[in-house]
Amino acid sequence: MQTRLYVLAEELNSFIRNEDIYGEDAIIKELKKTFPNLDINDLNNIIALIKLQNKTFAKEVISAELVATVPALIHSKKTRRTIGVLREYIHASKHTILITGYTISEFVKDLIQLLNKKASEGVIIKFFLDKHVDENFIKSIVEINKNFKIYKLVNSKVYSNLHAKIAVFDNKHALISSSNLSYNGIINNIEIGSILHGEGVRELETLFEVMLERKFFKKLN
Amino acid sequence: MQTRLYVLAEELNSFIRNEDIYGEDAIIKELKKTFPNLDINDLNNIIALIKLQNKTFAKEVISAELVATVPALIHSKKTRRTIGVLREYIHASKHTILITGYTISEFVKDLIQLLNKKASEGVIIKFFLDKHVDENFIKSIVEINKNFKIYKLVNSKVYSNLHAKIAVFDNKHALISSSNLSYNGIINNIEIGSILHGEGVRELETLFEVMLERKFFKKLN
Repeated sequence: MQTRLYVLAEELNSFIRNEDIYGEDAIIKELKKTFPNLDINDLNNIIALIKLQNKTFAKEVISAELVATVPALIHSKKTRRTIGVLREYIHASKHTILITGYTISEFVKDLIQLLNKKASEGVIIKFFLDKHVDENFIKSIVEINKNFKIYKLVNSKVYSNLHAKIAVFDNKHALISSSNLSYNGIINNIEIGSILHGEGVRELETLFEVMLERKFFKKLN
Repeated sequence: MQTRLYVLAEELNSFIRNEDIYGEDAIIKELKKTFPNLDINDLNNIIALIKLQNKTFAKEVISAELVATVPALIHSKKTRRTIGVLREYIHASKHTILITGYTISEFVKDLIQLLNKKASEGVIIKFFLDKHVDENFIKSIVEINKNFKIYKLVNSKVYSNLHAKIAVFDNKHALISSSNLSYNGIINNIEIGSILHGEGVRELETLFEVMLERKFFKKLN
């Protein structure tokens, strides 16, 4: 029985993950073999139950994909490119984007323009900058818009720099990386990051909210 | 029925995640209410099946927890401290540790000593350094041991620096962060990272193996 359950569990998992490919009839047929006493109504309810339990599980978990900046000659099918992830999730965001900058260069002007566009469409952008970032440069590339909020780290004795390289999208997806917003970070260095998915990434926004309350940052615009 | 299934799915999920607290009798009792036709044998098998399917699911997914370096006055219960994660997973590693270094200072000597200890116990350590890291300093803190392999990025026109800040433990857990191995990275900056869990993090070791084959790095010892 145990072996049979192992096989069935894998089939059930394939069904839940790729319903379109696997098909409900096939899985019901398989379930029926192991549970001959169950009627079709019970079987349908058990499938519904497992689907719901999987959703509950998935909601609690932060899942992750690998992200990398590596030279073009290195092909890694299992990592996503930093620039691709940034573009995709900025594009897809509907409500809020929180992004940090330690080193920011002209090279990411197109990303900033995309953020400008999102702000003009009503998305709230919170851009947290390290203390050494040139304010004038930032003000020259960010369009004046009440939705685009820029904060800069203030000098302090209890911390040094905002060195984090993150971008949080709609409080549901978060890129956590070593990549700065520069040519090196996006193209020329070897950088590793991860894009996280799940309600749990909201904690990152909470962290920055707490730091705002504690006056770690001053608002620039 | 649908509402009943929702509640049952959450109970089932609590049971699977926290079996010790919830108890098998309680969940069987709940299942029995929704599926009165099922005998105890079927119910037990359905629970076993769902547990197995959850394991299959979990194996496919990389799950993640948030990691941060933030000033002590910021309490974040939902993020783990960078230094704590490094110590815990270095300690727990049994086979391999891959770690990258862009900026490394005296401050992390205790972590290097812990790596020395693991190497002496048979754990293979692969330490990948950026090209600007001082070899003599590294050689002065790493104990000579055939298990402790040190690689340094070579100059090239196709890439700039090894800027990634990662540590991969037994190819099952990976810290991906903005934190350098320095006082600022561990204590004094604002840094964000994530510790990833799952078979999928093996791709990071694969990436570095490919770069080794391509002679991106030279072996120092």
